[in-house]
Amino acid sequence: MRVKSLQCRICKKEFRAELNYVCDECFGPLDVIYNFDEINLTKNIISEREKNLWRYNELLPIENKKNIVDIGAGYTPLHKAKKLAEKIGIKELYIKNDTVNPSFSFKDRPASVAVSKCQELGLWAVGSPSTGNLASATAAHAARAGIPCYIFIPYDIESAKISQAQIYGAHIIPVNGTYDDANRLASYAGDEYDIGIVNVNVRTYYVEGSKTLAFEVCEQLGWVAPEHVIVPTGSGALLCAIQRGFREFNKLDLIKEEKIKISSAQPEGCSPIVDAIQNNSDLIKPVKKPNTIAKSLAIGEPGDGIFAVNTVKKSGGYGEKVNNDEIREAIRLLASTEGIFTEPGGAVSIAVLQKLVNQGKINSDERTVCYVTGNGLKAPEAPYTQPPKFSIVEPKREVLQSIIRR
Amino acid sequence: MRVKSLQCRICKKEFRAELNYVCDECFGPLDVIYNFDEINLTKNIISEREKNLWRYNELLPIENKKNIVDIGAGYTPLHKAKKLAEKIGIKELYIKNDTVNPSFSFKDRPASVAVSKCQELGLWAVGSPSTGNLASATAAHAARAGIPCYIFIPYDIESAKISQAQIYGAHIIPVNGTYDDANRLASYAGDEYDIGIVNVNVRTYYVEGSKTLAFEVCEQLGWVAPEHVIVPTGSGALLCAIQRGFREFNKLDLIKEEKIKISSAQPEGCSPIVDAIQNNSDLIKPVKKPNTIAKSLAIGEPGDGIFAVNTVKKSGGYGEKVNNDEIREAIRLLASTEGIFTEPGGAVSIAVLQKLVNQGKINSDERTVCYVTGNGLKAPEAPYTQPPKFSIVEPKREVLQSIIRR
Repeated sequence: MRVKSLQCRICKKEFRAELNYVCDECFGPLDVIYNFDEINLTKNIISEREKNLWRYNELLPIENKKNIVDIGAGYTPLHKAKKLAEKIGIKELYIKNDTVNPSFSFKDRPASVAVSKCQELGLWAVGSPSTGNLASATAAHAARAGIPCYIFIPYDIESAKISQAQIYGAHIIPVNGTYDDANRLASYAGDEYDIGIVNVNVRTYYVEGSKTLAFEVCEQLGWVAPEHVIVPTGSGALLCAIQRGFREFNKLDLIKEEKIKISSAQPEGCSPIVDAIQNNSDLIKPVKKPNTIAKSLAIGEPGDGIFAVNTVKKSGGYGEKVNNDEIREAIRLLASTEGIFTEPGGAVSIAVLQKLVNQGKINSDERTVCYVTGNGLKAPEAPYTQPPKFSIVEPKREVLQSIIRR
Repeated sequence: MRVKSLQCRICKKEFRAELNYVCDECFGPLDVIYNFDEINLTKNIISEREKNLWRYNELLPIENKKNIVDIGAGYTPLHKAKKLAEKIGIKELYIKNDTVNPSFSFKDRPASVAVSKCQELGLWAVGSPSTGNLASATAAHAARAGIPCYIFIPYDIESAKISQAQIYGAHIIPVNGTYDDANRLASYAGDEYDIGIVNVNVRTYYVEGSKTLAFEVCEQLGWVAPEHVIVPTGSGALLCAIQRGFREFNKLDLIKEEKIKISSAQPEGCSPIVDAIQNNSDLIKPVKKPNTIAKSLAIGEPGDGIFAVNTVKKSGGYGEKVNNDEIREAIRLLASTEGIFTEPGGAVSIAVLQKLVNQGKINSDERTVCYVTGNGLKAPEAPYTQPPKFSIVEPKREVLQSIIRR
């Protein structure tokens, strides 16, 4: 068996690898423990496989390959951002571009693993609470698996995100409340109707998919870890998964580096993790009414909050937050220097990078990776404070002299 | 030199490989002629290169690699569509998924080549007339190149497409007219202001980029050509380029197959090429007011129309058109079976596939590839005849029993 057990992150009690996600003694979250001694994974073995996240399948918790639900998630470009690096004032900057995942955000990674695990566990349906991206990712994978999908979504998320999830055939349930309200309703559905709620009762397996964002960056840099990564942070799960990814690659001797600085990037208006880091606090203060254009990061009660805080501190990284104007500016900056169009959530890492460089916290020769986690078309109006205005011109030669300025 | 000359497609007169696109004798379009004898390109050489369209650089018209403007276009997934194939009733179907190109449509391919060529030719600015996708592709590559970009666009295209191009920093010029009006205005700009209009005065080089859609399919099938491909058709340039791609790969002995059926897929409301094929006519009858939800195919005066007609006929393929309802249905079908969300233009190939299979024109064991050319988020409202309605629910456990039906 690939998975040895599930283990409580707090009290270390072990459980069988079944549909379980919370410790029955201390209510801590469970983590997947692999039979590392049995894993034989080399650079050569990986290099010859298909370019998707399943190239690292020994480090993902699916026992039987026939259960894999694959629509091509993962192995997205690591884009060397030369022009952006110059503008910001560092030497070596890479963008991990997850705008081009199959459903157009990084959530395809955990969703692919979670829906696969639901197949392996024999569940009849899947679902998720979501701020939008996970809805589409879960729905797309459920479509491919051919099983029903229930999506619980705050009523006010971007309309393009709702219609996308629905197109894949999902049942959409807009909830009169915040993400956290949608989350609670989805949890009930999982408990009472035997549904695999990918980021709730399948969470232990689900979060494993995001480790591949660390694996891929190392492989794409030539089996070397970056020195500093900046991670857009909502629940904190992505940040923790990236750290585990680096650790596992080091353990398997696929990279030599042991310490990689991990910084958390959050929007003002919903920055409970960054606030705890900056205040050197061991407590996460929930945000009752998140208020930011970065809706994919608007998680006021972050499930992995305190673990993310500890991960950042241990790594030597930072927490930093940016406001809506800074996020909009970062969307434009990334698009107009590198041709990459991200949603607000993805731009938060760029805006924070700029801030950390300005503060002197990132050295100009630190090899840095910004994770850009979702597609700009998910929220095309977000970069604008008001709809862009254009003057319509007549199709006549004379209009050109007022338009083109050499 | 990689490029031997430019040659008139009609009278075969040859020209030097400069900024030129039309024959001064017969006004025929010019094609790139390569020094094929000097090309040494093997499967092994290609296999070891980076996964983008520049892996085939010997067959693209850029002389000096330093001029290449690369944001990661190409080498998109060839998705084996098992569930969709079953539904439609054929055995082996693949989706060439260009929804995940950097600016989210296949236009990144010709735009990457054209903007690179503009760099090589030393032009100060680029531009294009566009129904939307080319606007974004040109603007994204211009951003990376660091040069101004002028986009001429019909005033009524999807708003997400305009804002996307603008985010990359392009100057947007909405024209009170059709695509063909925007096209004429852009041509003037190219002639009078020394701008590289990628699909007009740089067109000869531009169209070369789309050949990579043939190259990649062959490589991804294991250096074998498909038996039948279905191509969404606007100007006809993409279809002709795909045919040239197959021919060049055969010439270089990278595939054995000489004859691949190429079918043209158009929307009702703008189907001048399909109409000519079906009426066995040698004349393209322009469509004055294109009327279709597949706006990226709404080109009433297709520049390569008659060449596309001849290519389809020679190949043994078909022309077929589909209406708006069939297109909407195809968007849903593709999304809900394979987890791929396309814009209307991309769904036209799926809808036409279904029609051709129903008509008995595609044999159930023909290895078929559908080109899916653009991302569904470009026109998220298109699948709906009216905005989808949702009943917002309260975040209470009791609501679940009316929602979840096992």
